[in-house]
Amino acid sequence: MLGTDATAEEQTTDSSITVIGNTGDDITLFGLRICPDLDTVMYTLGGGINEEQGWGRTDETFTVKEELAAYGMKPTWFGLGDRDTATHIVRAQMLAAGYPLSTITEALCDRWRPGVRLLPMTDDQVETHVVVNDDQGRRAIHFQEWWIRHRAALPAEQIVSVGAEEAKPAPGVLAAIAEADAVVLPPSNPVVSVGSILNVPGIREAMSAKTVVGVSPIIGGAPVRGMADACLSAIGVETGAGAVAAHLGPDLLDGWLVDDADAGTDVEGIEVRSRPLYMSGPAATEAIARAAVELAAELAGKRGDRG
Amino acid sequence: MLGTDATAEEQTTDSSITVIGNTGDDITLFGLRICPDLDTVMYTLGGGINEEQGWGRTDETFTVKEELAAYGMKPTWFGLGDRDTATHIVRAQMLAAGYPLSTITEALCDRWRPGVRLLPMTDDQVETHVVVNDDQGRRAIHFQEWWIRHRAALPAEQIVSVGAEEAKPAPGVLAAIAEADAVVLPPSNPVVSVGSILNVPGIREAMSAKTVVGVSPIIGGAPVRGMADACLSAIGVETGAGAVAAHLGPDLLDGWLVDDADAGTDVEGIEVRSRPLYMSGPAATEAIARAAVELAAELAGKRGDRG
Repeated sequence: MLGTDATAEEQTTDSSITVIGNTGDDITLFGLRICPDLDTVMYTLGGGINEEQGWGRTDETFTVKEELAAYGMKPTWFGLGDRDTATHIVRAQMLAAGYPLSTITEALCDRWRPGVRLLPMTDDQVETHVVVNDDQGRRAIHFQEWWIRHRAALPAEQIVSVGAEEAKPAPGVLAAIAEADAVVLPPSNPVVSVGSILNVPGIREAMSAKTVVGVSPIIGGAPVRGMADACLSAIGVETGAGAVAAHLGPDLLDGWLVDDADAGTDVEGIEVRSRPLYMSGPAATEAIARAAVELAAELAGKRGDRG
Repeated sequence: MLGTDATAEEQTTDSSITVIGNTGDDITLFGLRICPDLDTVMYTLGGGINEEQGWGRTDETFTVKEELAAYGMKPTWFGLGDRDTATHIVRAQMLAAGYPLSTITEALCDRWRPGVRLLPMTDDQVETHVVVNDDQGRRAIHFQEWWIRHRAALPAEQIVSVGAEEAKPAPGVLAAIAEADAVVLPPSNPVVSVGSILNVPGIREAMSAKTVVGVSPIIGGAPVRGMADACLSAIGVETGAGAVAAHLGPDLLDGWLVDDADAGTDVEGIEVRSRPLYMSGPAATEAIARAAVELAAELAGKRGDRG
């Protein structure tokens, strides 16, 4: 299974699940290496997430952040929590000692025990940058700066996966895909989360050989969460359940779950089914994941896939 | 003026004061560079110290430390506070960017405005290690491990300033001494604080050319604070006000303030005066510093010193 929002998958089955996490959002700040998507999966499935905000640790404090600001350290827009800081210190220490991100992620998961195998999409450094153009001129800024500091409100001309072309999938990624019964694309941001993973050479090809079912992150023309519409505009894709499926493409996607609000969506070469997609709680989320897995099984049977 | 305990000096005079801080206690932990003595001076004179414990920040929390321990990160014995962590992150960042410790200390003091010029004794890395010998065998450990983890209770065979021989005084140190009206050695640990500074080639010689007055850290045969006796034992010096003065030596020391409990202490070649030395509060501390400066002025007059 693929993506950064793994809440659902964990709870549907006892079978072995691998989550491939986006690392394009990763950023180095204050000498710390921050991997927001890997950490969100780890904290969420490990019971440490701040559920209300959907990122960061529960019972978080921001003393380090406030003190860094008092020293005049920039940037000040990043929500660096104290508990979170420890995770980034461990990761930065292990990186400095020469460990690859995949090994570090495994070590961090030794504590969190997320119940899935969590792999970064790559051990190489890939960073999503956004080309913006305002009265300060045309320039590329880190995705986090665009997303958090500018709340994605600064019009994006282009979204670039810097380093993606030379990146290799992390150890275990291609094998996990090859051995999977099904690949599920969760309703994450199709451009900067799912899209970043697909930009790593080899991953899209490996998935295309499997039965892949995606869950639409767009309901009734608007993103369920976050600001995916701003990312879709940047790459010239309409914010619609069907448009996103067409963008991902029938070579990749076999099935696509849309919300009942989008019932009747038709995408050539992709089996579209509608059902409720609002993740109102763990039970709803589990049901969505189960529906995606069941659709994948059904389509795999039709394809005569290995799985 | 010299030393790491600058509480007193700051308050005695409006004249320009330079504090030369010991960096032998410095340690790298979790990728952070920690300078306990420089920070203690900075926080104390800048109004950020935890007055009760005499180190670290006021209103401190220990979330980062607890989280690092939850990841199994070692060591767990170091009291790394959250506020303090931000200081170490700034310092580590600037070191990684190539700035020398003296420049970094100046930058940190931009926030704290301690009212003195705070200089590290050296920009080179000097670390105090302690040779211990117990059932785990003879080995050298970092001073902080001996001091904090073992509470100086592990008998020390030797105390070594690793790197001191090749170290150079930080920019400004020798000039500050040369231009000083007087040099005051505060009642800091004579072995690992004052002693470490004197181990940097050139500093002792520069001071010996000036009028130097020290304040005894030993009252009635016991250290006023801390575990200086354990350090003195390691270098074979008796824990006594007179013995410490003799150890520092008449080539360096012109005057020596001892507590009234040690009145009658006689050290060849050094002018010994007694007065109350317990730092019971800012007023008492100020009076001690003032007495040291006044004794230096008196002795300088006798010597016909420049100052």
